[in-house]
Amino acid sequence: MRPIPMGAEMSQKTPMYLEDLTVGQTFRSDTLAVEPGRLKAFAAEFDPQPFHLDEAAAANSLFGGLVASGWQTAAISMGLMVRSDFKIAGGLIGVGVEAIRWPRPVHPGDVLRVESEIVEVRPSQGNPDRGVVRVRNTTLNQHDQPVMIQVASLIVPRRRG
Amino acid sequence: MRPIPMGAEMSQKTPMYLEDLTVGQTFRSDTLAVEPGRLKAFAAEFDPQPFHLDEAAAANSLFGGLVASGWQTAAISMGLMVRSDFKIAGGLIGVGVEAIRWPRPVHPGDVLRVESEIVEVRPSQGNPDRGVVRVRNTTLNQHDQPVMIQVASLIVPRRRG
Repeated sequence: MRPIPMGAEMSQKTPMYLEDLTVGQTFRSDTLAVEPGRLKAFAAEFDPQPFHLDEAAAANSLFGGLVASGWQTAAISMGLMVRSDFKIAGGLIGVGVEAIRWPRPVHPGDVLRVESEIVEVRPSQGNPDRGVVRVRNTTLNQHDQPVMIQVASLIVPRRRG
Repeated sequence: MRPIPMGAEMSQKTPMYLEDLTVGQTFRSDTLAVEPGRLKAFAAEFDPQPFHLDEAAAANSLFGGLVASGWQTAAISMGLMVRSDFKIAGGLIGVGVEAIRWPRPVHPGDVLRVESEIVEVRPSQGNPDRGVVRVRNTTLNQHDQPVMIQVASLIVPRRRG
């Protein structure tokens, strides 16, 4: 889906520049299973609430069972993207996220993956050496149901003239 | 700043309901130092990019030195909020975040805290037992500079009639 510059075939692993990205391009990550132990360890450090820590307490919560912190889902999604073919020269550097939704919870044992779609490519007005790319990242579970949807803005360098 | 119901003095630790929250109320967390070892451990698991993992590689990046993953800043901020006096009955349950910005990086050794301000209190149309509260959470470093700003929407139960 990516334009191939100067006739050379480029591996999907080759870091991309602003010129390589166009609206509508999509990238898919590998999958990652959410281990119960890692779910509770993340909660203990970052989000120590009963519905993330303890099965019995979680059964009495709004969720009716143990669920992952939404921030763990966000962090796992970042890891899946970093390890995917969506490689940007200089790295995946976000300036911000304009919207995150968690439409349904993530449970222990769920298997997550991320689909990323480029929604805007905009050269910077002030910095001729870079631009901003908006990308919609959808994290899906093993039933192909979205568990997190976010639109992030990334700093992407331009090729040197 | 919080209205005190029925003349009874309520500890700041008492979980709050929708009726206890008003626009303009603010809450402050304790502080947490970002340990270099924890910064690299988070990056290794969730955001394995050179500028989060290795001082030498980070020196050559856009950041000029080692910085925390923005998702670690988000996770640390959640932990600070959960452990603060901003206690909601049923827990801090976010349905989404409408905007996150990371205006400057977090470095190893930075000391973070969160200030939360209620910006909207809205009873649910469909669920008479709950509402949605929008809260602006600003994560500040030891120089009182914002490192993360987000506006989150939380599900907050109403008192039973």
